[in-house]
Amino acid sequence: MNKEQRIQKIQAGLRRKKLDALLISQPHNRRYLSGYSAVDHDIGESAGVLLIPAQNAPILLTDFRFQMQAEQEVAGMQVMLYSKGLLPLLQKLLPDLHIQRLAFESHYTLHSVVTKREDVLGKTGITLHPEDGIVEEMRLIKDEEEINKLRRSVLLNEKVFEEVYQNIEPGQTEIDIALALHTTMLKKGAEGPSFEAIVATGSRSALPHAVPGNVKIKKNQPLMIDMGLILDGYCSDMTRTFVLKKAKKKFMKIHRLVRKAQLAAIDSIRSGVSAASIDKIARTIITNGGYGKQFGHALGHGVGLAVHEGPGLSSRNRKHLRTGMIITVEPAIYLPGWGGIRLENMIVVREDGCEVLNQNRTWLDSYN
Amino acid sequence: MNKEQRIQKIQAGLRRKKLDALLISQPHNRRYLSGYSAVDHDIGESAGVLLIPAQNAPILLTDFRFQMQAEQEVAGMQVMLYSKGLLPLLQKLLPDLHIQRLAFESHYTLHSVVTKREDVLGKTGITLHPEDGIVEEMRLIKDEEEINKLRRSVLLNEKVFEEVYQNIEPGQTEIDIALALHTTMLKKGAEGPSFEAIVATGSRSALPHAVPGNVKIKKNQPLMIDMGLILDGYCSDMTRTFVLKKAKKKFMKIHRLVRKAQLAAIDSIRSGVSAASIDKIARTIITNGGYGKQFGHALGHGVGLAVHEGPGLSSRNRKHLRTGMIITVEPAIYLPGWGGIRLENMIVVREDGCEVLNQNRTWLDSYN
Repeated sequence: MNKEQRIQKIQAGLRRKKLDALLISQPHNRRYLSGYSAVDHDIGESAGVLLIPAQNAPILLTDFRFQMQAEQEVAGMQVMLYSKGLLPLLQKLLPDLHIQRLAFESHYTLHSVVTKREDVLGKTGITLHPEDGIVEEMRLIKDEEEINKLRRSVLLNEKVFEEVYQNIEPGQTEIDIALALHTTMLKKGAEGPSFEAIVATGSRSALPHAVPGNVKIKKNQPLMIDMGLILDGYCSDMTRTFVLKKAKKKFMKIHRLVRKAQLAAIDSIRSGVSAASIDKIARTIITNGGYGKQFGHALGHGVGLAVHEGPGLSSRNRKHLRTGMIITVEPAIYLPGWGGIRLENMIVVREDGCEVLNQNRTWLDSYN
Repeated sequence: MNKEQRIQKIQAGLRRKKLDALLISQPHNRRYLSGYSAVDHDIGESAGVLLIPAQNAPILLTDFRFQMQAEQEVAGMQVMLYSKGLLPLLQKLLPDLHIQRLAFESHYTLHSVVTKREDVLGKTGITLHPEDGIVEEMRLIKDEEEINKLRRSVLLNEKVFEEVYQNIEPGQTEIDIALALHTTMLKKGAEGPSFEAIVATGSRSALPHAVPGNVKIKKNQPLMIDMGLILDGYCSDMTRTFVLKKAKKKFMKIHRLVRKAQLAAIDSIRSGVSAASIDKIARTIITNGGYGKQFGHALGHGVGLAVHEGPGLSSRNRKHLRTGMIITVEPAIYLPGWGGIRLENMIVVREDGCEVLNQNRTWLDSYN
């Protein structure tokens, strides 16, 4: 689906619901529908919104700072600028376009913003209608063009990992390695990291979201690297846990258990199975191995324009996986004081099975 | 004020308003009041919330992934974990603490989240009360301890700039320089960048929010660097625009005009003057120089735990500056096709004037 078809699908949905327009504020949704790639510094500092009228062509509304970028990227779509904030522009523009019933993204609009809009726009008879996840629902299923972009993102991410991995030496710090990852990514053409890389050594790898520190890498200790990049808008996300030189027995035992759980989960992925059942397959193996309580998070999550998106691969998600979904499978065992092992790959759900986007490598000599 | 005093101030406010508790979700506010430094990946992926009951000690609510970090950082404060999301925990915890009237941060809570909470918590008679900017209002005024942290952040940022500046050569790309900034920051002890550095050469400097690209730096062309870092939680933010080798006449003319506007604005900053009047001083000078329409954004913004916070130095902010506020002063002129010049320093508002945290340097040989 190109962006015109995506817009048409949204417009058809609006007409069915008798809504006059939808205001898109979520940055990935904005990019998905318009091509405009600006990133919001945070939710309170928007780089613009996309107004999709049910009956007219969409308009990108932004400010002076982003004018040139917007005009370059949205190709054919109208760009309008606001100088005193979005609301005064909407107050003028919506009546001109005969928009009375305005839908907005409830899951990406602040409560205070909605209150103020209701107040101001209500005076001219405009009503606001919360919508939740219309575009995210579309984004769940990737077409082959998107899958190719994700495949290239994963491949580049592995190349970056491989290059940095070849140069890791005991005595380097976590920050040294995080910087090498960051630099190598950008030099190889990534738009940027899809999240700040996690590089955690020794017992620090027991923190699932460790921030790299000035801690030196030692041989024979676990080293966990969780990294991803953005290429052509699409994210990769991969975790490897390994040991420089020789892995100890306990490390190999736990590593094998995590890998076994990962392979079994992947083996069961295909269109039509529930997300929860896949989580359960991995969790049962880890629980039977004696570490169920040390695997405290969900098995995985969707990846696309956002590094974390639907579907969640968790015990709470009873929904079925569908062809074209892309998910991570990342079982883990965390032992406070000792360390953690997490292994994460990205998988495409197919009709009769799945496709692993990563190479079949663990970066552990004991396996290879 | 230490964090206990900050909490007490909030609790006193809650009791005055007959509210039973305030739920803090905004990450900088959370850090300001608890010391917990985790960063939210985005507003939909919270690393936890701080519950401040009017009558009891505050509790940090987070999940498994952040347990170790939270317990290390909040020193003495209780940490509670949720495993099935925050809402089920609140549903159990609030009645236990006799909390009926719960205030929340309207400006940092999603509309959909409020709707769901009203639905679920309403069943047990709990009511939700939007609050907007209570903690931000406190954060506007920095005490001397915070000012020192900001001063050290600015000084380190200038050291990083200086080191990278000394090594800039024609032929390097914008990305090379952005990476050198990033690496140098982390090596010198910053927690990280306060935002992704802008490095824009030639006509690309006319985009106020340019993303560094694979574009080579040429001598005799404008080069704009806008950069900042986080040190001990506090942000710096600085822009320099300069030329390798010899600046052309037009560059110097515009640079002098921007610098003149900056110095005049700084010269007028003191407690009691309105933010708008400072914006006007700089804007009038640039307008009289013939470039008013090419200065399309506000003169500056507050800086603290967040790189963009209050007060805004804009024509729309009629409020008075107060002692202990920290603001950027960043006039600019952008000429599409030619380039842009922006100069940005950080200033502390004092009783009878102000203090510039930056060195008095422009990094342009024609001045120095």
